[in-house]
Amino acid sequence: MFAGDKLLRIPGPTPVPERIVAAMSQPMIGHRSQDFIKIFLEVLEGLKRLFGTSGDVLVLAGSGTLAMESAVANLLEPGEPCVVAVGGKFGERWAEIVKAFGAEPIIVEYPYGEGLEPAAFAEALAANPKARTAFVTHNESSTAVMNDIRGLAEQARKAGVVLVVDAVSSLGGAPLPMDEWGVDVVVTGSQKCLMLPPGLAFVAVGERAWAKSNERRRTAYYGDWRRYRKAQEGGESPYTPAVSLVRGLAESLRMLEEEGAEARYARHELMKRMVRAGLSALGFEMYASDRWASPTVTAAAGGGVDLEALRKAVRKQTGVVLSGGQGELKGEILRVGHMGAATPLDMVATIAAIEMGMAALGARPEFGRGTGAAMEVWQSWQ
Amino acid sequence: MFAGDKLLRIPGPTPVPERIVAAMSQPMIGHRSQDFIKIFLEVLEGLKRLFGTSGDVLVLAGSGTLAMESAVANLLEPGEPCVVAVGGKFGERWAEIVKAFGAEPIIVEYPYGEGLEPAAFAEALAANPKARTAFVTHNESSTAVMNDIRGLAEQARKAGVVLVVDAVSSLGGAPLPMDEWGVDVVVTGSQKCLMLPPGLAFVAVGERAWAKSNERRRTAYYGDWRRYRKAQEGGESPYTPAVSLVRGLAESLRMLEEEGAEARYARHELMKRMVRAGLSALGFEMYASDRWASPTVTAAAGGGVDLEALRKAVRKQTGVVLSGGQGELKGEILRVGHMGAATPLDMVATIAAIEMGMAALGARPEFGRGTGAAMEVWQSWQ
Repeated sequence: MFAGDKLLRIPGPTPVPERIVAAMSQPMIGHRSQDFIKIFLEVLEGLKRLFGTSGDVLVLAGSGTLAMESAVANLLEPGEPCVVAVGGKFGERWAEIVKAFGAEPIIVEYPYGEGLEPAAFAEALAANPKARTAFVTHNESSTAVMNDIRGLAEQARKAGVVLVVDAVSSLGGAPLPMDEWGVDVVVTGSQKCLMLPPGLAFVAVGERAWAKSNERRRTAYYGDWRRYRKAQEGGESPYTPAVSLVRGLAESLRMLEEEGAEARYARHELMKRMVRAGLSALGFEMYASDRWASPTVTAAAGGGVDLEALRKAVRKQTGVVLSGGQGELKGEILRVGHMGAATPLDMVATIAAIEMGMAALGARPEFGRGTGAAMEVWQSWQ
Repeated sequence: MFAGDKLLRIPGPTPVPERIVAAMSQPMIGHRSQDFIKIFLEVLEGLKRLFGTSGDVLVLAGSGTLAMESAVANLLEPGEPCVVAVGGKFGERWAEIVKAFGAEPIIVEYPYGEGLEPAAFAEALAANPKARTAFVTHNESSTAVMNDIRGLAEQARKAGVVLVVDAVSSLGGAPLPMDEWGVDVVVTGSQKCLMLPPGLAFVAVGERAWAKSNERRRTAYYGDWRRYRKAQEGGESPYTPAVSLVRGLAESLRMLEEEGAEARYARHELMKRMVRAGLSALGFEMYASDRWASPTVTAAAGGGVDLEALRKAVRKQTGVVLSGGQGELKGEILRVGHMGAATPLDMVATIAAIEMGMAALGARPEFGRGTGAAMEVWQSWQ
């Protein structure tokens, strides 16, 4: 049966709104032209508001991992120790990149489905005074956990450590006012809460990070922060920027500002609660506890069905695309993305799609139980 | 007066055909989905035909400089000497990247407006036997010169040196059959002859390059070739690929194959001759001699007008965007791009635009002299 276009409810990439598609489809312009410079300067101002910083937000052509790598390459010397928080796949990625550059990650593990306690982070920093940089994950999308960056940054400030935050799957969907919270570096990508296709990476760099970075000898060229800062002063990029994506970004930032940051964060929080209520009503267990639950992605276990079979059935019957677990979590969890261009009504439809998928597997849910629970949350939300 | 959309006749980015815009505007899909994998596997096969190789063509999200950097990071050890051919801005970029990674570039200069003689290259290789890698530029777009890669590769083979070629502004517009010519690494970007927006970078890696690369300790993560090779075996990318650009690339490769490689190279050669004839008839001097003239971009000097004022007048009156010179060549040359989605008729229009711009500056050309000369070339072309 006709199920329409595939509808992504995964933790990125996310659907791209028509307004952004239209912006990206305009005739190509040169990246050294006044037309482009005007757009790019507008974008750079909008990004500062989005990141909550008066500092530089550097725009790179590449994916989020490039932005992560640039932080390691611009901040660490070979052999230098640093603290890395690991509670899932993206924390592991920080550690891998640090090792690839010949620096020494000191791993602070936290349990899957939970966040890192600021007190535990403080202990790790105190135990490793030679580590002057720490790498953490804002939203660990592999386990659907959001860390308490405000609390972690407070400890980093006390210890005088430069704090680098991977906010790839959260920035724009949850507050992360970097100057106010005292975060030094924030990286993100275009294909999550920013509602764009993948291909742009962002690095916001604060004063303390510049100071540490300026002391070291870099091994990066394409990812060398200084080249971006210098070029961006004139509204340019040191290497050819991804022009069409930057045009889409300008439109995306306009959409974000029309909605307003507080309303947007509230929408993500509401969608999270709706999905958790809906899935709980269908008999699933929430993988992340309420305290650490992410506003951009929800992971559920149980449900009495084969979760991989459920994903396939949902996709086939309804066109809705969900994620499973990664690595050792494959088959153990179902992940529902609710970030970027997604609405409360989309969440009702997503829960309905899951009910239909369960029915297709013979699980015979009481239709409307999950969607009803989600709507109750929506109704009571003010 | 209405001058239509800006029309790029610069050495990249180039206009994006409607078919490709439509392909990029389709609803977003997940990068681990079967839908994407199918498209990506088709793309990887098409790229092998385009590069003329049975080896790997790695696809990175980023701009061409990222692909260049990856070659340096995957092939050179810190402190290792290598030969770098420099005859313009992009040769200089190779040298800068090599230095950024702590390796030692041995510069072989060749004059602006000329290519590097294979015999001079052979001498440099013989004089520096410790250099086991050489970096050259196929199309030096800053001076509108195309190097004789076949001849340079022959010398590299004789010397047993790994040859890395920057073909960012030429691949697809001029022959570069890497396996047949014995080239080890070829890098390019999406926004030139491939008719896409900027944002994808490509690295084709041959057997000898893999062998050298496998011996060394890398400092790259995002640009680590091995990760791309491994992921691409299954039709995936190690990090989130630029999904919309990859979809556009699939359409671009279909268009390239519909036209056929030989016809495409001949079209670029014809456009080159038309532009050179038209500009010569208008009193300009060709900056690159016939022997070294690039089929993708033409640089002209003289003409009896202020070249920067001419560019502005042309853009204002006709919407046609031309390039000037870079660095010390600013104001000295005018550059006309003729690559990717460009036709012989577009070249007549471009020459007409230049005639109109000259008239606006009071230079009073005999209208039709330049366009006529271009059409004569077209008419006699079989």
